[in-house]
Amino acid sequence: MPALRAQPLSPLPEVRPGEDLAALIAASAEEAGSLRDGTVVAIAHKVVSKAEGALVALAGVSPSPRAVELAAEAGKDPRAVQVILEETAELLRAERGVLICRTRHGFVCANAGVDASNAPDDDTLVLLPRDPDGSARSLRARLRELTGARVGVLISDSFGRAWRHGQLDVALGLAGLAPLEDWRGREDSRGLVLSATWLAVADAAAAAADLARGKDSRQPVVLLEGLERFVTEEDGPGAAALLRAREEDLFL
Amino acid sequence: MPALRAQPLSPLPEVRPGEDLAALIAASAEEAGSLRDGTVVAIAHKVVSKAEGALVALAGVSPSPRAVELAAEAGKDPRAVQVILEETAELLRAERGVLICRTRHGFVCANAGVDASNAPDDDTLVLLPRDPDGSARSLRARLRELTGARVGVLISDSFGRAWRHGQLDVALGLAGLAPLEDWRGREDSRGLVLSATWLAVADAAAAAADLARGKDSRQPVVLLEGLERFVTEEDGPGAAALLRAREEDLFL
Repeated sequence: MPALRAQPLSPLPEVRPGEDLAALIAASAEEAGSLRDGTVVAIAHKVVSKAEGALVALAGVSPSPRAVELAAEAGKDPRAVQVILEETAELLRAERGVLICRTRHGFVCANAGVDASNAPDDDTLVLLPRDPDGSARSLRARLRELTGARVGVLISDSFGRAWRHGQLDVALGLAGLAPLEDWRGREDSRGLVLSATWLAVADAAAAAADLARGKDSRQPVVLLEGLERFVTEEDGPGAAALLRAREEDLFL
Repeated sequence: MPALRAQPLSPLPEVRPGEDLAALIAASAEEAGSLRDGTVVAIAHKVVSKAEGALVALAGVSPSPRAVELAAEAGKDPRAVQVILEETAELLRAERGVLICRTRHGFVCANAGVDASNAPDDDTLVLLPRDPDGSARSLRARLRELTGARVGVLISDSFGRAWRHGQLDVALGLAGLAPLEDWRGREDSRGLVLSATWLAVADAAAAAADLARGKDSRQPVVLLEGLERFVTEEDGPGAAALLRAREEDLFL
């Protein structure tokens, strides 16, 4: 088995709406030795959201009575809560200043992924990309156009989880990277069936990339080498394939 | 930021109870270029359990009426269910052939981590180590004795999770590796407070190691380089620090 390697690219300049993010990444990767077929380009979602203009100016937001009420309980800006509610399909918990939401996309996370940190200015909130799998496909196509390389693209964010402290990056959007590797029903090294082995490849790759990244270092892009076996010609099912329907979820 | 690198060691021979696992690892690492201060030695728990004799022979197990009843519903061997129940502090769900358990250690996982795959023979089940943090501390001390290197030791298993399909390796036992990196309250690159950034370092490292490992390849040991900043002189709080108390858990 070849080694897995996660190499952050140099910090990107501040990304503005309409920016050709793939071109910034290709230029930065060029310095680092260029992209190859089978490289996985792991991108913190925030630069994708910024390039796509998935931003909200607080000054223009009118909070609903519900947002005002939740904000008072949570000690938050009612306008920020309004933005969070607009991104939310189902509010699962509102407690101790944290809103746990199922987003429009189906992700379960704090504050529907809406975040003020590393926003362009103090009045702006950054949303999750509208269609993260679509974003990944577009970036992949543009990277191929610019570099010729058939890479995998992985867009991630840091989410908390049940049962355990701390956050892990998980895949929000994917193109050309298998979300899962299914060993269920295959045999182990002794010929016994491996009954419950179903590796969340893309989430593991997101976690590995985040571990290589400095949180305050403006290093949103990490190149992963050694995952060539999971990189596909087709864009594939995307990160949506990682979402488990509530009624199937034995962990809840 | 230096690159993160995850390199599996060559397959180990079948590990038997009483085996000096640290000596097997040190010998295998020697071929791969030896251990250094700051290397994280990531180990799939199964070889630790085998070396410690955390094994149960099904032939000697008498299932309780409760185990017989659950086994009938789940389509499992009643003796295997008995073993699972003995490892379980709280049975959270029993559905569709899966038992979701909180183990004696506090881990929430399927079948209390009891597994037949890669067991020494068809009659044997492999348990989680009795005290995984203790196992990690012992392995670390012995590796230091054998090699002189101050490594971090990480013992992991693949667990399913809420909300998302697939499994990720998580830390069961740790010595000399920080379980979490707390950025809560620190400032981002613009001076704004990062309100909710609390990286689960050890779980991310476990996921990265598993991604480098072939599931059927008898490669339980992976060396992680590039995590020197998380490797500590002291053994530290262990993986127990990753467990979230149910009453604090907003994701449930």
